[in-house]
Amino acid sequence: MEALKEAIRRDGRGIGTDIVKVDCFLNHRIDTALVTAMGEALHQAFAEDKPDLILTVEASGIALAFAAAQAFGNIPLVFTKKGSHRNTADDHYVAPIISYTKGDSYNVQVSKQYLQPGMRVLIVDDFLANGGAAAGLRSILEQAGCELVGIGIGVEKGFQSGGGQLRAEGIKVVSLAIVDGIDNGRIILRD
Amino acid sequence: MEALKEAIRRDGRGIGTDIVKVDCFLNHRIDTALVTAMGEALHQAFAEDKPDLILTVEASGIALAFAAAQAFGNIPLVFTKKGSHRNTADDHYVAPIISYTKGDSYNVQVSKQYLQPGMRVLIVDDFLANGGAAAGLRSILEQAGCELVGIGIGVEKGFQSGGGQLRAEGIKVVSLAIVDGIDNGRIILRD
Repeated sequence: MEALKEAIRRDGRGIGTDIVKVDCFLNHRIDTALVTAMGEALHQAFAEDKPDLILTVEASGIALAFAAAQAFGNIPLVFTKKGSHRNTADDHYVAPIISYTKGDSYNVQVSKQYLQPGMRVLIVDDFLANGGAAAGLRSILEQAGCELVGIGIGVEKGFQSGGGQLRAEGIKVVSLAIVDGIDNGRIILRD
Repeated sequence: MEALKEAIRRDGRGIGTDIVKVDCFLNHRIDTALVTAMGEALHQAFAEDKPDLILTVEASGIALAFAAAQAFGNIPLVFTKKGSHRNTADDHYVAPIISYTKGDSYNVQVSKQYLQPGMRVLIVDDFLANGGAAAGLRSILEQAGCELVGIGIGVEKGFQSGGGQLRAEGIKVVSLAIVDGIDNGRIILRD
């Protein structure tokens, strides 16, 4: 998506070899017009997949997921909550999300009543790196008996393994921008 | 706001004497059309106050704040991040948020570059109870030299002290629905 790539070129910052800092428009300060347009772009990419619901992770995925939910004609959005330290709960689906970047893991949960068996669900998140968040969300969808129709991402770190692994499994993954690397603070975008 | 009150009457649940559970449309599952309309209602309420930016707290305030930012003609949105355990940081404004409900406190932070002195800022949040989040956000705006133009809320617990205290200070607070109490699981809404 050209407008996102422009924003990354203009305002993004690469740190070290693997940190893509875009918090001035995507995940701390939000450029409302840009994120709205990103939601519309995800709708275009997944319109034929007809999701019933969008699932994301709190917190930084929420704005993009909400914009996408609007673009799909105001379908509902569910965001996982950080929380339970238990691995099971009577009224929630629980799954771990492993952060390879931070080297830790935390549980997320979704109230069972909001994911009905057979629902067609699109996962949306601001970032895809090693796929830890996507794996946790897929576990929740499997527990709930929902159908994953695809994964829509703002910025994918193409030099990390998450996107490649998911696509190798046959999952439809669409990222609005893919970063191929960082060179001396400069973010290298895939054409 | 009538549509919100209807949703609270239909789907909200009161628990004990003070828990207002609206997570099936506001803060876990999101009713996209309703939250979009709530953002428009906040725009109507604060249009004359001409905010430059909306400030909210991650995570459950983000969708409503984003919808409001859209309604104000796509002004930017900043959400505080949970984080620093330190009370100061060179590049962030930091303030504690005291949760009277949970009896604990945590720090939130905003990168200094996103709040410029003199900016007119509207605080938006999904809930207002004892005013702990509002106090933390006001502290951040004071540190930054920004002007608070008002506080827009989804659901106010009118039986707790936050809203009354803020209004007594002369701050413009608009809540789209006010809950006056809970009676045997039934949520009592103010007319």
